[in-house]
Amino acid sequence: MKINGQAYRTIWLSENNPGQVCILDQRALPHALVIEKLYTVEDTARAIQEMHVRGAPLIGAAAAWGMYLAARSVPETTSLLPHLESAADQLRRTRPTAVNLSYALNRIIKAAQIKPGDLSLLELIRSEAAAITEESVHQCQAIGKYGLELIRQQYQQRPDKPVQILTHCNAGWLACIDYGTATAPIYLAHDAGIPVHVWVDETRPRNQGARLTAYELGQHGVPHTIITDNAGGHLMQHGQVDLVLVGTDRTTRTGDVANKVGTYLKALAARDNQVPFYVAAPSSSIDWEIGDGLSEIVIEERDDREIKWIQGQDSHGMLQEVLLCPDDSPALNIAFDVTPASLITGLITERGICPASEKGLLHLFPEGSSSATKSTP
Amino acid sequence: MKINGQAYRTIWLSENNPGQVCILDQRALPHALVIEKLYTVEDTARAIQEMHVRGAPLIGAAAAWGMYLAARSVPETTSLLPHLESAADQLRRTRPTAVNLSYALNRIIKAAQIKPGDLSLLELIRSEAAAITEESVHQCQAIGKYGLELIRQQYQQRPDKPVQILTHCNAGWLACIDYGTATAPIYLAHDAGIPVHVWVDETRPRNQGARLTAYELGQHGVPHTIITDNAGGHLMQHGQVDLVLVGTDRTTRTGDVANKVGTYLKALAARDNQVPFYVAAPSSSIDWEIGDGLSEIVIEERDDREIKWIQGQDSHGMLQEVLLCPDDSPALNIAFDVTPASLITGLITERGICPASEKGLLHLFPEGSSSATKSTP
Repeated sequence: MKINGQAYRTIWLSENNPGQVCILDQRALPHALVIEKLYTVEDTARAIQEMHVRGAPLIGAAAAWGMYLAARSVPETTSLLPHLESAADQLRRTRPTAVNLSYALNRIIKAAQIKPGDLSLLELIRSEAAAITEESVHQCQAIGKYGLELIRQQYQQRPDKPVQILTHCNAGWLACIDYGTATAPIYLAHDAGIPVHVWVDETRPRNQGARLTAYELGQHGVPHTIITDNAGGHLMQHGQVDLVLVGTDRTTRTGDVANKVGTYLKALAARDNQVPFYVAAPSSSIDWEIGDGLSEIVIEERDDREIKWIQGQDSHGMLQEVLLCPDDSPALNIAFDVTPASLITGLITERGICPASEKGLLHLFPEGSSSATKSTP
Repeated sequence: MKINGQAYRTIWLSENNPGQVCILDQRALPHALVIEKLYTVEDTARAIQEMHVRGAPLIGAAAAWGMYLAARSVPETTSLLPHLESAADQLRRTRPTAVNLSYALNRIIKAAQIKPGDLSLLELIRSEAAAITEESVHQCQAIGKYGLELIRQQYQQRPDKPVQILTHCNAGWLACIDYGTATAPIYLAHDAGIPVHVWVDETRPRNQGARLTAYELGQHGVPHTIITDNAGGHLMQHGQVDLVLVGTDRTTRTGDVANKVGTYLKALAARDNQVPFYVAAPSSSIDWEIGDGLSEIVIEERDDREIKWIQGQDSHGMLQEVLLCPDDSPALNIAFDVTPASLITGLITERGICPASEKGLLHLFPEGSSSATKSTP
């Protein structure tokens, strides 16, 4: 998508230097556009851990490119696989909740285990990382196409006003490679001339909504309003939300969804006010081995500094961190929560929309049944 | 309660200067303790509007003292009532949601309308403002006594661990004159040796939880942990909350509660996880004329700057405001929401605990029936 009128993706291999992977350092947004260059798997692990890149699909792609950088660092005479496995371990430890991370790492390892044919092992890994990246773009486009119809239906029911969509966190193109998951239907609707207005949850503690979703919607010209995470329930009580659209970091085979903390609260409010609650769930987010999200998904706890201090731009245009609370008060930083399938109206996947259930997912992804049955007791 | 070991209230008439009302300027907390002096009704209106003082009971007391300052400014030969009514209008416009404001203003006007007996009119208004202030302290103490028993019951059921209480915003002594409403049971339990631990919702956008509740609990030595407003649902899903205790800015005669925005979301999560959800509701918060909170309570919308900019202490110890989002993104700042009575386990009043219903409230406050029937269609 565009920033200041120029098309960007969130991650790309440099055209001039095959040892250099470029990312948008999202910590500086929306105040500055910083392109960071990664040369090693350590650079990549740090960029994921410290959230220079974030969002499940982008984490997956970044991990794949990290494996490529790891592969490049090994002399040709050395056996590559042990190095790749060690790099994968390093990358896997950075963010425990997003399934795309494991998915991408496993896929690269698997590709490397198969005889590469005409390609060198390094070329094969590069091609696999590029494929993971492109597939993510195509998944987002397909999700956009299916989700667009939901927005169109809402508009046809009430053509006198914009469709009011609430979203939490950033499941936008900045969380992906391009288009976004939850935002793809919004961009497609906007481009198709359907009037939309987006309520953007600011999404504490890291304010991905206020910083990133508001920024990317604004750059694309989509009308939006930032609200606190506390306000969505009130808006739904007063008929000001037609549709909730969020992303997912891990979707169980039964349709439970781990997404940014606070998603569950919005799902409760949506149910209480009969507002449709949809999750944009690319198949890369589905963990077929997990049946119960609440008891089985590992929820990341992050540094309490992310709650106690906040970064913004001061009146002189400088980035500053300020302390929000008594210095000696402890804080607990839970990054995700689980929204049970029972609260979800439907999952928007790249193969269509389905109920948030094992049956619904298997109908669209019958190939999941092999993994699903494997782990059923 | 104490700050740095010294006992304070949030508002008091200067001992040496009867034209000076002192308040703690809560905008500077927790980083600095600033005592502000008010001399006029304009000072007072500004202090309420710009939230130097906040919290329903404290707003009521501040308004009463503002009326006293207004009365002092009128020459003795002038008729006081028109001046008082104009001062009341000015004060009433500052914050529309808290009923305590109207309550205090009406009470002062009513007192001034009655022949003052031996007291001068000014002395009478001063005595009425002092009475409103003292009654608030006694109400908080009584709420504490009744709420303490709820905490004791939780502890007796699970004496192997601290009672885990979640609170939203600041319904602490800083929102009142002393003790607080929602915090009074917590302070009394802590002082009675019952182990408690408080989850403090930071409470965006003004962070009254992270700034004020954490500060006052910390100063009193009560174990607590700050969380984002997004996290309470997750904690309840995982059995880490035994009890929710919040305040109220306006309670309808049917038991609906307008409180800081986000309260409704926590009430939904409490119901979904069978966590008791109690509201500390002094009778001064009850609006007997309102039957339906959702349609009848005016919800304040505040400046969007409170969402887009946030104040904290920088690494040099200076207060700074920083911008959190794109400068050109709009924001909507809804200050309160309404939690329907059906989600509330009980109301803790100064006369005991009752169901959140007209019957429950009238059982404790039979005198409310005259106002209640007046407005029933």
